[in-house]
Amino acid sequence: MPIVQIEMIEGRSVEKKRKMVKGITEAIVEAIGCEPGAVRIIIRDIAKHNIGDGGELMSDK
Amino acid sequence: MPIVQIEMIEGRSVEKKRKMVKGITEAIVEAIGCEPGAVRIIIRDIAKHNIGDGGELMSDK
Amino acid sequence: MPIVQIEMIEGRSVEKKRKMVKGITEAIVEAIGCEPGAVRIIIRDIAKHNIGDGGELMSDK
Amino acid sequence: MPIVQIEMIEGRSVEKKRKMVKGITEAIVEAIGCEPGAVRIIIRDIAKHNIGDGGELMSDK
Amino acid sequence: MPIVQIEMIEGRSVEKKRKMVKGITEAIVEAIGCEPGAVRIIIRDIAKHNIGDGGELMSDK
Amino acid sequence: MPIVQIEMIEGRSVEKKRKMVKGITEAIVEAIGCEPGAVRIIIRDIAKHNIGDGGELMSDK
Repeated sequence: MPIVQIEMIEGRSVEKKRKMVKGITEAIVEAIGCEPGAVRIIIRDIAKHNIGDGGELMSDK
Repeated sequence: MPIVQIEMIEGRSVEKKRKMVKGITEAIVEAIGCEPGAVRIIIRDIAKHNIGDGGELMSDK
Repeated sequence: MPIVQIEMIEGRSVEKKRKMVKGITEAIVEAIGCEPGAVRIIIRDIAKHNIGDGGELMSDK
Repeated sequence: MPIVQIEMIEGRSVEKKRKMVKGITEAIVEAIGCEPGAVRIIIRDIAKHNIGDGGELMSDK
Repeated sequence: MPIVQIEMIEGRSVEKKRKMVKGITEAIVEAIGCEPGAVRIIIRDIAKHNIGDGGELMSDK
Repeated sequence: MPIVQIEMIEGRSVEKKRKMVKGITEAIVEAIGCEPGAVRIIIRDIAKHNIGDGGELMSDK
């Protein structure tokens, strides 16, 4: 713990995810004082036709 | 907010998802009085071999 | 299935949740053609100090 | 209910998932006394480049 | 990993949760061959007025 | 989007959550280049008797 789950639009590179995971972990450690090894992050890539925004699919916008 | 996450069996068409997202958003807006633009929906398609129902995989039924 | 999880700001009445659950279920049934009894909905009430929006807690806005 | 969501590293066989779903369902039934048919399980397979552990992607370890 | 999230109706005793956590962990270890220490379980207690079943709140049934 | 859900042990102060939400949002913006206003974060406080770790409740450790 903490366990972090992130939903984001698919297509981000592994390099961006690597940077994101590093930055989020550092932010949590600094804010709450836990060990970095305690932070687990799950990223879920979501296709635009699986996201609804204001009643429309994001793929239709 | 609200944020809606939906798990459903994979294979539904984009047309069905479009209709579902529209209908759910309207239902939430009517029930709680928020703006349509505040409703965010995430759909996750799940394969039948990743669903357990009564101790069995749905793909085995 | 489908399984629906909804995060919303705490404080909505049971009457609003009742209406919301009915409306969402009808919208899903109409869109994808499943049985009403197959739709399971979980509502999670979230305090404003547990929601981040644009880098700020919603309770600070 | 109960509804169980499991995130695990992708690549497990259907046979292992079958055994896991059976075992988890039995464990829940024995512990809380519900019907097996009430237990719904969702498995989400996660790629190693979508898992952060201690600030690093699991695919980098 | 694996990470397990369980939604269940509120009111189960700590003793039942203790037994459930033990049983689920053993079932996962036996099925997929991971270490017990790798299994993390989150239980979320849900009030009946926050559960929709077939279009109705569970608290209305 | 992105939508971030965080499970953590209950008891952290609002001040720590404020700092955490700010830091996570900045880390995501820097890594993937989205607008800060697009980042939505949900924090769920979990009691130790609702967390399983290695087959035991965290409250028993």
